[in-house]
Amino acid sequence: MSETTSIGPVRIVGVGLLGTSIGLALRQHGIDVQLADMSPTNVRISADYGAGRPAAASDEPDLVVVCVPPDVTAAVVEAELALHPRALVMDVSSVKSSILHQLQASAADISRYIPTHPMAGRERGGPSAGRADLFVGRPWVVCWHAGAVSSAPVDAIIRLLGASVVNLSVEDHDRAVALVSHAPQVISTLMASRLVDARAEDVHLAGQGVRDVTRIAASDPDLWVQILGANANAVRSVLSDLAADLGRVLTALDDVEAPGARRELAETLSVGNEGVRRLPGKHGLTANFATVTVLIDDTPGQMARLLTEVDDIGINVEDLRLEHSPSAQVGLAELSVQADVADRLTGSLLERGWTITG
Amino acid sequence: MSETTSIGPVRIVGVGLLGTSIGLALRQHGIDVQLADMSPTNVRISADYGAGRPAAASDEPDLVVVCVPPDVTAAVVEAELALHPRALVMDVSSVKSSILHQLQASAADISRYIPTHPMAGRERGGPSAGRADLFVGRPWVVCWHAGAVSSAPVDAIIRLLGASVVNLSVEDHDRAVALVSHAPQVISTLMASRLVDARAEDVHLAGQGVRDVTRIAASDPDLWVQILGANANAVRSVLSDLAADLGRVLTALDDVEAPGARRELAETLSVGNEGVRRLPGKHGLTANFATVTVLIDDTPGQMARLLTEVDDIGINVEDLRLEHSPSAQVGLAELSVQADVADRLTGSLLERGWTITG
Repeated sequence: MSETTSIGPVRIVGVGLLGTSIGLALRQHGIDVQLADMSPTNVRISADYGAGRPAAASDEPDLVVVCVPPDVTAAVVEAELALHPRALVMDVSSVKSSILHQLQASAADISRYIPTHPMAGRERGGPSAGRADLFVGRPWVVCWHAGAVSSAPVDAIIRLLGASVVNLSVEDHDRAVALVSHAPQVISTLMASRLVDARAEDVHLAGQGVRDVTRIAASDPDLWVQILGANANAVRSVLSDLAADLGRVLTALDDVEAPGARRELAETLSVGNEGVRRLPGKHGLTANFATVTVLIDDTPGQMARLLTEVDDIGINVEDLRLEHSPSAQVGLAELSVQADVADRLTGSLLERGWTITG
Repeated sequence: MSETTSIGPVRIVGVGLLGTSIGLALRQHGIDVQLADMSPTNVRISADYGAGRPAAASDEPDLVVVCVPPDVTAAVVEAELALHPRALVMDVSSVKSSILHQLQASAADISRYIPTHPMAGRERGGPSAGRADLFVGRPWVVCWHAGAVSSAPVDAIIRLLGASVVNLSVEDHDRAVALVSHAPQVISTLMASRLVDARAEDVHLAGQGVRDVTRIAASDPDLWVQILGANANAVRSVLSDLAADLGRVLTALDDVEAPGARRELAETLSVGNEGVRRLPGKHGLTANFATVTVLIDDTPGQMARLLTEVDDIGINVEDLRLEHSPSAQVGLAELSVQADVADRLTGSLLERGWTITG
């Protein structure tokens, strides 16, 4: 890439999952990457993985990428702005307004600060979890603020990492992630919490629905306390509206024979239908998919054989998932396909001897 | 199967998804299946698919399976008990206490009534959605009640359909499904409702988390009004507890600097961790899985090739899912494997030229 050669030395402060992943990707493009972290061990691990070299006191980076937890991001950005008076400093924290406000209230030269947030991550953390391609195909928010210099070098780095730049104000970013990330996290957590005291026979009846609703409840509490604390107002706004809706549902359930109670429930469920349709489908398009569920023996190779045959039939699988029955040695492969080819897929798979269960 | 020959004629009342699926499976075992429905068209479609023959006035079934919507189940069960005074009558409705109570308050001979609920279904309804293997590997709840005759013939039919019998009281059933099905439905719906007025740039940032939390919000409102209405007390109990937790979260978010606020958030998130661990994993076991995420070109055949190679490597995929990037023509295949083989899988796939992104 022609832009590669124009990117100077990059200093990464905080070499956990994100910092190490950024370093790995930049090294693949031959960029000089200087690694710094409170933990010398983490720097050595990250360097061993190939994310860069330990930073030296004489280094003069063109760009500093701050990849530390949200609650120390502002302080580290301020220190880096002072330490490297000619460098741009970007952060990758998942909250933006509170960090910008802290910096605006400081003596830092924030004209050189570019707030960013890559919409990428994984369940594991730490340098050993780093991957050069963590950001490929993901949106990466870059925020502007009054008096900031051009973010062009930051945009170039982000594109080099394979992500797509999304420009938002810090307020719009925080409102957006409160809605599509932070509030769903709390809701998933609260639903999962109800399972703590469940009887064994209750959870035995659990199907895919409750699994989906509660999957992200397994996230790291320490990180999420920081995120929720730093974006409290925006998250509170979403959850307050939800609590009001929940209150109306509880009133309806309290006396379902009361006039209007069932209508309240019906309208709530219909609005939910409408809301889920707002989520973009494959490649950002909202499409009309149908699911074909295929019974497979729970033995190695079955799923590969199924998908090979689906390719032979000439139908593209838009999404898939493998569900295991809790009470039998069988699996159910749910194939999402364009709705207009679902019947053809079902017919072709039946002809080939597969068992279609839905 | 030896038990097949001992099962006499079965009458199915209501030939939608569940009724037709039961008929298709019973016909595969050579059992005489008599189909009845308010809609003569549905009976013809269901019979055309091979689920049985239209019922005749002279039929004398040994077993009647009532597969009508929850709000008319009690009335239809009562009518069938009167119409076929020697037959067992079972229903398959997703709520149980309210139907039993209605029947107990009637003049019906409920000693011959067996309340049941198969934990199976699909997004589409109607006879054309019926599948003989809909119930394979699924739990199927059979409830007892005072004065009921033996459910042995019902248990035999359920096992013939490939499901496993789970015995619960109607109260325990309703409490269990309120927790693992009905409350998650409401919570998913309420979160999805927040997306209705979202800006396009907000939903563009949506990742897999909010998709999972809101997936079941796409369910049929008419059916769910009946389910929630018929199990209102049990659902209300779960949601009231959740609302109380939500209230505490809102208070904490209202002033995150207050003493104890962050501790409240941390404890909420930790309890959610604990709750999600209660859900059984593959084949009913709670296991320790790790996810390996592989970048794939979004072209037909890539997923099949990946899974074939994973089989070659000799590792069993416990669960998988394909995620498409909203902003790039690439897909991310998330492979869940036993945690102790994840590093070996990652290494082997890297050697074979795959890109691991997490």
